[in-house]
Amino acid sequence: MEIIRPRILKGTRDFMPNQMIYRDFVVSKLKTVFEKYGYEPLATPAIEYFDVLSGKYGEEVEMLLYRLAYRDGRTIALRYDLTVPLSRVVAMNPDIVKPIFKRYQIQPVWRAEKPQKGRYREFTQCDVDAVGSTSILVDAEIIAIINEMMASLGFKNFEIKINNRKILDGITEYAGVSDSSKVVCRCIDKLEKIGVERVKDELEENEIPTDAIDKIFTILDITGDKETTLNALEGRLDGFESALQGIDELRQINNALKCLGVPDANYSFDICLARGLDYYTGPIFEVVVKEASIGSVVGGGRWDTLIGQFTGKDVPAVGTSFGLERLIDAMDMLSLLPPIQTKIQALVAPFNSDLTMQALDCVSQLRMGDINAEIYFEPDSMRNTMGYASRKGIPIVIIVAPDELSEGKVAIRNMQTKKQEKIEITNFVARVREILADKSV
Amino acid sequence: MEIIRPRILKGTRDFMPNQMIYRDFVVSKLKTVFEKYGYEPLATPAIEYFDVLSGKYGEEVEMLLYRLAYRDGRTIALRYDLTVPLSRVVAMNPDIVKPIFKRYQIQPVWRAEKPQKGRYREFTQCDVDAVGSTSILVDAEIIAIINEMMASLGFKNFEIKINNRKILDGITEYAGVSDSSKVVCRCIDKLEKIGVERVKDELEENEIPTDAIDKIFTILDITGDKETTLNALEGRLDGFESALQGIDELRQINNALKCLGVPDANYSFDICLARGLDYYTGPIFEVVVKEASIGSVVGGGRWDTLIGQFTGKDVPAVGTSFGLERLIDAMDMLSLLPPIQTKIQALVAPFNSDLTMQALDCVSQLRMGDINAEIYFEPDSMRNTMGYASRKGIPIVIIVAPDELSEGKVAIRNMQTKKQEKIEITNFVARVREILADKSV
Repeated sequence: MEIIRPRILKGTRDFMPNQMIYRDFVVSKLKTVFEKYGYEPLATPAIEYFDVLSGKYGEEVEMLLYRLAYRDGRTIALRYDLTVPLSRVVAMNPDIVKPIFKRYQIQPVWRAEKPQKGRYREFTQCDVDAVGSTSILVDAEIIAIINEMMASLGFKNFEIKINNRKILDGITEYAGVSDSSKVVCRCIDKLEKIGVERVKDELEENEIPTDAIDKIFTILDITGDKETTLNALEGRLDGFESALQGIDELRQINNALKCLGVPDANYSFDICLARGLDYYTGPIFEVVVKEASIGSVVGGGRWDTLIGQFTGKDVPAVGTSFGLERLIDAMDMLSLLPPIQTKIQALVAPFNSDLTMQALDCVSQLRMGDINAEIYFEPDSMRNTMGYASRKGIPIVIIVAPDELSEGKVAIRNMQTKKQEKIEITNFVARVREILADKSV
Repeated sequence: MEIIRPRILKGTRDFMPNQMIYRDFVVSKLKTVFEKYGYEPLATPAIEYFDVLSGKYGEEVEMLLYRLAYRDGRTIALRYDLTVPLSRVVAMNPDIVKPIFKRYQIQPVWRAEKPQKGRYREFTQCDVDAVGSTSILVDAEIIAIINEMMASLGFKNFEIKINNRKILDGITEYAGVSDSSKVVCRCIDKLEKIGVERVKDELEENEIPTDAIDKIFTILDITGDKETTLNALEGRLDGFESALQGIDELRQINNALKCLGVPDANYSFDICLARGLDYYTGPIFEVVVKEASIGSVVGGGRWDTLIGQFTGKDVPAVGTSFGLERLIDAMDMLSLLPPIQTKIQALVAPFNSDLTMQALDCVSQLRMGDINAEIYFEPDSMRNTMGYASRKGIPIVIIVAPDELSEGKVAIRNMQTKKQEKIEITNFVARVREILADKSV
């Protein structure tokens, strides 16, 4: 028989049990927040018809779609994100958005990228979207969800930057280059990464006239607290309808966020925020974790025209999207992940193989008491057994040994304190529960 | 812009929120049981190198692997099951099995099949396996997990059928056709489906001599309670080492299951059970739900030689595998799924758009009290609002209206009793919690 060398595709990963515990912890926190805001779970298939996914992201991204060769000749592809599949679901079930469809979705996506640090071919995306409403209050609610989610994961020093594509459109109108609005957004999006001078260069390369670039930057220079920023913008962009509407929407968002209890310090209006994706049509937002130099961890915005690509009729939508692994990386940097190594609470170790049946009985009693318990099956030295428990982080070992058994007892070893005690076999489950309660943080 | 007709690939499905609630419910029950037995979560990528997956399942199955065409010329494929990926993980991390690696894995798998009733191209598989131990007690533990999982999902009338490939090997030896053991197993596997006569035909087609077939069936005819079956087998297969070892293993499993508290009525020894897959090497088992005519819902067994295909050195393993959707279908047939339509507990409805901010404040208070609450954003009639709540199964509607507000109150409508009451706005969250507690089953 031929031996096949076991290996894993670059840019993909196995998640071992200790990592899965973190993932489950974070996902469960996220679901709790999403559901608290009335959003409900949806799942879509990983494989979709190629033409359903194509034509939505732009040429460069389309190259990154994993295509599947299947013998009957149809082309199918692995999903690239969760937004286009959601759009397909809505287009196929138009009644679900009357008046609103609020869903979250946590599933893997695939991108045929050159793998590099922080860039994976398979990763888990988390999306929260509300489809069917033009109300700006929904945009505010999505921002409130982001705020609560960040807080519930333990982030303390984060900032939700908010802007509006309508304001950016107004700025390009003001600069006399409104036809190039999308190009300008794509360049401005890089400000943080490459700096003012190189953004100006890129704008020039895209044939934006120098005086227009200057006019754009006099507006982008506006900073300050929320009211100052909005007032200054309003003064400078007077007469540009789109901009004024965008400013008014940010005012409404500000008022709604106050009612929704979002602390003022957690969000700001940032005219330089542009977001890379073409399909945003209104408010846009992004979360920066200040202590972790990891860049933006969450993004989102209003996307009112994408679903129309399936139906010919626009359906308003707004939401947020983020990668689970990136968020977990940021939590890891800030030591926000729980110090849990394992969910196994007790290991039952028979002293020798003659005592296996008694040990099985013990482990069975623990499980009946809803304690996660494992039995050490292999005939082995106590040293090795303890080593296994300690390596795995199992807090308690129950030793089933002849001496104790002859007194109707078992030995319970607390792996943290290294203390060992003999307890009646009729009562040991209760004692294990006591020790666990003592240890739980 | 070209309109692309939205459609979904045959054999794949969207899971809408109400279905996701069932899925989450079942998955959470499963995880609780798996973790109670000390098994821990693992996840592997959906995409693997083609040659890592190939050569493991047999030719027919290999045709069902979804292959991905990627521009750099490598061939990759979507995983077909979770057993081969687990084998790869163990082969790449040989230390994790010292002395045992116990993992569960709940992830989708893909099969390029012709879709038909109950046969999907993408479905979720649940696997529980222990790798590294030859102890027959691990086989018993896997059977105990299956028993507890079925009971915890609410199944009452199910049977775990148990057999041993070693006994089947012994039977073919006894019949003088031990070289054809795998073929014989594959034929016997169809007994339930196609009946004795057609199985005999198939055995003949596979060139098993008539007298050997007769000898095989004199043994397969043995039935009865556990001890009767094992004793009869022992008598008939005296001198056939493999069979005797297999019988002894079933005796050990029987003893262990007693210690593990598995009710005697929930399992039986069935010499006709063969399982289709080639890679089983020892005890095998299968669960039949008696009330639901859905066939076997869970299967499994010992597979000691698969990992060796990666490393050249066998690593013992035993586990169980089942499809989530099939299990949920069986639960649905028996009305075992929870009657929950939504996780949203309250809908806040402003009487008119002037009261939106007050309504936002109310919904925010509910959420601070950990109540899953939604606000009805669209200016709409109360009739439509109530219709929405009722259609979604939201149990409580809070109406924020001018008259009540002027008295410092809101109206709370219990959607089940249709009763409406006015409650002080300072106290309404507590009242909502009371009503919810009253309703909860």
